[in-house]
Amino acid sequence: MKIDGKQVRPIWLDPNTKIVKIIDQRRLPHRFVVTDLKTVSDVIAAIKEMYVRGAPLIGVTGAYGVYLAALNSGSGGSTSIIDACNQIKAARPTAINLEWGVDRVLLKALKKKTPPEITAAALKEAGIIAEEEAGNCKKIGKHGLTLIKKLNPRDAAGPINILTHCNAGWLACVEYGTATAPIYTAVENGMDIHVWVDETRPLNQGARLTAWELGKYGVSHTVITDNAGGHLMQHNMVDMVIVGTDRTTYTGDVANKIGTYLKALAAWDNHIPFYVALPSTTFDWTLRDGIAEIPIEMRDPDEVRYVYGAGKDGDTQVLVPPANSPAANFAFDVTPARLVTGFITERGICKATETDILNLFPEKKIKISKRSNG
Amino acid sequence: MKIDGKQVRPIWLDPNTKIVKIIDQRRLPHRFVVTDLKTVSDVIAAIKEMYVRGAPLIGVTGAYGVYLAALNSGSGGSTSIIDACNQIKAARPTAINLEWGVDRVLLKALKKKTPPEITAAALKEAGIIAEEEAGNCKKIGKHGLTLIKKLNPRDAAGPINILTHCNAGWLACVEYGTATAPIYTAVENGMDIHVWVDETRPLNQGARLTAWELGKYGVSHTVITDNAGGHLMQHNMVDMVIVGTDRTTYTGDVANKIGTYLKALAAWDNHIPFYVALPSTTFDWTLRDGIAEIPIEMRDPDEVRYVYGAGKDGDTQVLVPPANSPAANFAFDVTPARLVTGFITERGICKATETDILNLFPEKKIKISKRSNG
Repeated sequence: MKIDGKQVRPIWLDPNTKIVKIIDQRRLPHRFVVTDLKTVSDVIAAIKEMYVRGAPLIGVTGAYGVYLAALNSGSGGSTSIIDACNQIKAARPTAINLEWGVDRVLLKALKKKTPPEITAAALKEAGIIAEEEAGNCKKIGKHGLTLIKKLNPRDAAGPINILTHCNAGWLACVEYGTATAPIYTAVENGMDIHVWVDETRPLNQGARLTAWELGKYGVSHTVITDNAGGHLMQHNMVDMVIVGTDRTTYTGDVANKIGTYLKALAAWDNHIPFYVALPSTTFDWTLRDGIAEIPIEMRDPDEVRYVYGAGKDGDTQVLVPPANSPAANFAFDVTPARLVTGFITERGICKATETDILNLFPEKKIKISKRSNG
Repeated sequence: MKIDGKQVRPIWLDPNTKIVKIIDQRRLPHRFVVTDLKTVSDVIAAIKEMYVRGAPLIGVTGAYGVYLAALNSGSGGSTSIIDACNQIKAARPTAINLEWGVDRVLLKALKKKTPPEITAAALKEAGIIAEEEAGNCKKIGKHGLTLIKKLNPRDAAGPINILTHCNAGWLACVEYGTATAPIYTAVENGMDIHVWVDETRPLNQGARLTAWELGKYGVSHTVITDNAGGHLMQHNMVDMVIVGTDRTTYTGDVANKIGTYLKALAAWDNHIPFYVALPSTTFDWTLRDGIAEIPIEMRDPDEVRYVYGAGKDGDTQVLVPPANSPAANFAFDVTPARLVTGFITERGICKATETDILNLFPEKKIKISKRSNG
């Protein structure tokens, strides 16, 4: 995306092709820091500590991690690469794209024999995945636009009001984003859009990242607390909710940033369309029951206790609760399919039912049916 | 309540009876600051800027404000006292206790003739209100205990898990609190209780105040983001929700800190009892439709944008979103009666229906019926 006139992605390859460059998203919006990933350890740390986050971007970072594993495998050969891949895949549990991206590059690379061939194949495949995800997001934008065009704004005089939770923007993907793609596409098409940005505690990806993205793109937006969405919906101030997802079952249950379930309940209670935008790479074609089966990451309680921001003397953090009060940090929740109006994918729109999802991705039907039959 | 062995209330009269003392709750838990209120302007600022907050405490502070108005009325007489009262009542719109407390003291005081008599009557009545609210909370604790005793913990091996939003503790009242009264009473009765404390953005009254209160009282608790409650409820980690309220219609609609509605939806979706604890002074006997009629305060967006806490060099605040991103700050929302399991009042428990509420407060039935008939 263009940021201050310059084309930027959240991940790119250094021209020397030995270093993967990322934006350190922990520091945005107060500092724009680019970090080098040179080793598998760098990749794992960047994913775990959330320099990079968002399901598609984690997938692409994992894919480039396989390349760095191959590049640095030395005499370890394919065994060391496979070991490294297992470590990368374990960096974060909820986003399915990580496992998917790593495995896809690994399988492609291991078809080659010599270390230089393996390395080259990994590099090529990681690049293909990055481009595919950019393309997926662009298509999500195109399909999402048709939905936005059909909305009847509750306040006919004002803009169309879209609420989003967390950051499912280009920072979470490669280009356009998932939840933001329909928004950017609508704005590009001259529509009058205003976005309610949930701040998204604990790490404030909404207030820090989505607000920054939208502001840089000139999209009208307002930051609100995560508590506010229900009130807005009760008072006709939201026309549509669009969120991303870290993993969605083929039955339509949606794991996304903690708090998404609460917004889905409020949308349902107020008859407001609640859409989830995702590339097909975020579907988990093996899980049926999202609440029971999707692994929910528990993160450091200090992410709840401390808040990062700009202080008087630069960026810093403050402790909010009493020093001796414990905290818990559940990173995701699962919104049951019954609360989801539909999915916006690169292939088009579908309802949040197994039948509709598999009609859009018929090639997965056979696999699921095979597995069910043992 | 006893804090570090010392009996403390959030508001008290200086022994010289010319100054009202309050805890500046904006600075807790990192600093314990006591502030003097000497004039009506002090009272209005303390209420507006939330040195004091919580419906019952706002009511008591307003009541003492009438006393300070009388004390300082000089040659202005009752006209200046009435003017001052109107200003105090306008300080914050949502909590009905403010208007109620001010009017009750004013009516009592204006029955007297000489300025010293008026002043003495105002002082006496404000003190009576403070003691009555302390007594109400104690009774709420006793009635709430019967509910907690009847719960079947979802995890039989562990404690009873109660979730609360914002601070409806003794800091919001005079003693015991409303939502916390059943918790304190249960702990005093030797029950094993654990409290999930919603941090309660934007001003973090949960993380700052409720966690501090519970910690000082030795109650087991965990601070969570406002986003987390739905996930906890889906996974059997909450046995009961208890919150306070700033204004409740006689039909059972509950205005409370923004985000309460989202927790009520999640409790309803997961079949978890959702109780609202309140003294009768928080009922609005004139309003029928909470969502349409209860005034919802909009506060300074900077309360959303900046977060207060302990930094490296003392207490300070940090800016979270980009400096040029706008924010909106809706302070309350309304939970419709259909989502409320029941009310815990000083008179006992009732369902969230007009009939049940008025059966508990039959003396209000006549007034409402009179008004309906014009």
